[in-house]
Amino acid sequence: MMEAAVTQHEPDQARGGRKGGPCRVVLAGFGTVGRSVARVLDGLRDDARLVAVLDRRAAIKRAGWLHDPDVVWTDSIDEALAGGADVFIELIGGIDPAESWIREALSRRVSVVTANKQVIAHAGPSLLSMATSNGCQLRFEASVAGGVPVLRAIESGLAGDRLVRVAGILNGTCNYILTRMEREGVDFASALKEAQALGFAEADPTMDIGGGDARAKLAILAMIALGVQAPVGGIHTESIASVTPLDFQYARRLGCTIRQVAWASRGPADANPGGAEGLEAGVGPALVPLDAPLARVSGSENLVTVRGQFGGETSFGGRGAGGDPTAVAVVSDVLGIARGARPPLRPTLTIVDEVSDDLAAPFYVRFTVRDRPGIIAALATVFADYAINIDAILQEPGFPADARPFVISLDAAPAGTVHAALEKVAGFDFHVAPPVAMPILGTMA
Amino acid sequence: MMEAAVTQHEPDQARGGRKGGPCRVVLAGFGTVGRSVARVLDGLRDDARLVAVLDRRAAIKRAGWLHDPDVVWTDSIDEALAGGADVFIELIGGIDPAESWIREALSRRVSVVTANKQVIAHAGPSLLSMATSNGCQLRFEASVAGGVPVLRAIESGLAGDRLVRVAGILNGTCNYILTRMEREGVDFASALKEAQALGFAEADPTMDIGGGDARAKLAILAMIALGVQAPVGGIHTESIASVTPLDFQYARRLGCTIRQVAWASRGPADANPGGAEGLEAGVGPALVPLDAPLARVSGSENLVTVRGQFGGETSFGGRGAGGDPTAVAVVSDVLGIARGARPPLRPTLTIVDEVSDDLAAPFYVRFTVRDRPGIIAALATVFADYAINIDAILQEPGFPADARPFVISLDAAPAGTVHAALEKVAGFDFHVAPPVAMPILGTMA
Repeated sequence: MMEAAVTQHEPDQARGGRKGGPCRVVLAGFGTVGRSVARVLDGLRDDARLVAVLDRRAAIKRAGWLHDPDVVWTDSIDEALAGGADVFIELIGGIDPAESWIREALSRRVSVVTANKQVIAHAGPSLLSMATSNGCQLRFEASVAGGVPVLRAIESGLAGDRLVRVAGILNGTCNYILTRMEREGVDFASALKEAQALGFAEADPTMDIGGGDARAKLAILAMIALGVQAPVGGIHTESIASVTPLDFQYARRLGCTIRQVAWASRGPADANPGGAEGLEAGVGPALVPLDAPLARVSGSENLVTVRGQFGGETSFGGRGAGGDPTAVAVVSDVLGIARGARPPLRPTLTIVDEVSDDLAAPFYVRFTVRDRPGIIAALATVFADYAINIDAILQEPGFPADARPFVISLDAAPAGTVHAALEKVAGFDFHVAPPVAMPILGTMA
Repeated sequence: MMEAAVTQHEPDQARGGRKGGPCRVVLAGFGTVGRSVARVLDGLRDDARLVAVLDRRAAIKRAGWLHDPDVVWTDSIDEALAGGADVFIELIGGIDPAESWIREALSRRVSVVTANKQVIAHAGPSLLSMATSNGCQLRFEASVAGGVPVLRAIESGLAGDRLVRVAGILNGTCNYILTRMEREGVDFASALKEAQALGFAEADPTMDIGGGDARAKLAILAMIALGVQAPVGGIHTESIASVTPLDFQYARRLGCTIRQVAWASRGPADANPGGAEGLEAGVGPALVPLDAPLARVSGSENLVTVRGQFGGETSFGGRGAGGDPTAVAVVSDVLGIARGARPPLRPTLTIVDEVSDDLAAPFYVRFTVRDRPGIIAALATVFADYAINIDAILQEPGFPADARPFVISLDAAPAGTVHAALEKVAGFDFHVAPPVAMPILGTMA
């Protein structure tokens, strides 16, 4: 048993000119992730050392953290950075004051590591430019899929490919709720309450359930994987709140289960003025084949799959949230900077103003009707008018005639056409509840 | 629609001082992968340009490649490097002359990118040191799991974690054969022939079937993920050739399927002189629970899962072989060098002389016997002598008494103890074929 040094370069060279001593780290936000980051950094003192904690409740939180008496605790960004810093870690979340603190650090030529999906999705390119101008770095591995190093893997490990599509399960709360509904047959409200009781869902779960959280992460993936910058608000989202246990029964008859899926593809070049490629993207509940990787993601896990022109499908899975996994992503970014790794050379971004979600896919539509003769005929006529083929009509027995659910599966058609047909269908007077439509993925055109 | 530049540094700075012009690439080996690499490089002329092809059949192969008349075709390493090179890509495979060519390139301060698992598994640390001394780089993403960027993801994206275990399906040929046996019930020999006919298996499949191929990849993963350098030959391998369709039937009764699994864990510190951590590792057929990620890898796909102290399980899946996916890994390494990315700062390796495969696991053992009363009693006595509990005895009906198979599943016990008991059992005269033993993973201690 012996030791062999296989480092490929000298430490001094590695730290990009900053000679001697560990990388000085200022940590903003001392919640669950912040505490984990502090703990992981504690084991890496040669490489990086926590010098200050910035938290608006610094005075209170300090009391519970007795480890290093030299760490400065403050609620002032100026004071936090005053002692000199190499890396500023932003973990407070939200846009304000997170974005202005990030700008403040970059303006002082301090590199920034953040887990903030909202700030990066909205202002990432402008902040990256600012980092470049100031000769420092901005890294945000933790902003997408928590501990799963998908951005790094795409940026460096798949740099030689041309990625054409990215799809993933990016919100652990939704996945926890949907897998509970799938396996236990509980309804949405009960599964949500369970998730809240276990700490998987916020008191206000709107961003999770409605798709806003996954949408921000998808916008970041679109930048890094596809080289496209899109307005985050332009990506269409559908809530998973309309999914019922019955939908899982019907989905299973179609060989599928239901997941909240975030997806983005390069759009056809001819769809845009100037002929540049566009972006097709969306977030919402979708049917996925039972044997597809996305179907196998259970509980609060995350999975990202990318499709490359040369490399085919590659997938990255793991823990998408939680203090320790997220801290691994944050600290890995810090170590990259501490050890002098250069920022990845990102492709020039194509900026698109509009995002289409008009991907052609088979669709699942559940109707709930006051039953009477002629309903199927009426629906079939509308779908025929829109040139949409009906694949199958599925109806489980045992429901009362005044609120009878049934499902129509449609052959692949553009989402826009399907939604137009459904708007027409909404005019009929037999609906007890609005139709629920979901794309059937895995067989996407 | 407009363009926004978000590169974080200047191209000149990015290329580590090498001013102007694309990175000059010499490619050794113009087989399936080499051709794909040439094709992918062709689309990246601003970043990297092929200047020479080194192949022992250069004169013949040149005829089929008419694209760039300026490329030098030669069977001499001196001539290939004579025109000046920034990166030497080694794709000829095997140890000789691959290793000496790699050394030749490094000695000329030319960075090396290789897909050669044998050279890296055997001589990686010494070659990395040589690269360091000469101020150039050695990269080998393609040597493990083809197009799946697992080394890069571990080295940079999980740098902040302490990984404790790695397991994976690293040989697509074995996985293709085993999934065919699982799904179609064909026997090993037929599945192998099929794989050969489809080009998934070599004419001499010994390295795949016997585990030598996966073992070399596992040794590289142990270096990168666990920081342990082990003698490749010291990692125990078991062939998958003894697996029969009947084993899949029994495995299913235990909620499992069968895969060739390569695994490595940090060993207990007290097992080694000096108290340093050791390595436990092995390659061979194993039962894996049907709902485990490894069970869901089908056909020639690869999957690597790592377990970190902080980040939990993270998995990386995709196409582990084939010209184009492997070319993506090679070209991504080239681009990393071309764009001035620094080599990862690798941890100091712990060198171990011996590798244990004595992990405690439940075991599956299939016996084939000339039936007579008292066989179970005889076996049970031996297992009791070794303090191994019997979990279940499974016997499918319909086999003749002179060659009757049955299965005993054993509670978790150290592999060494199980094998010692089986050696004792081998002395009985009722065996028609040697017992086949496989660990049952996923419930590993």
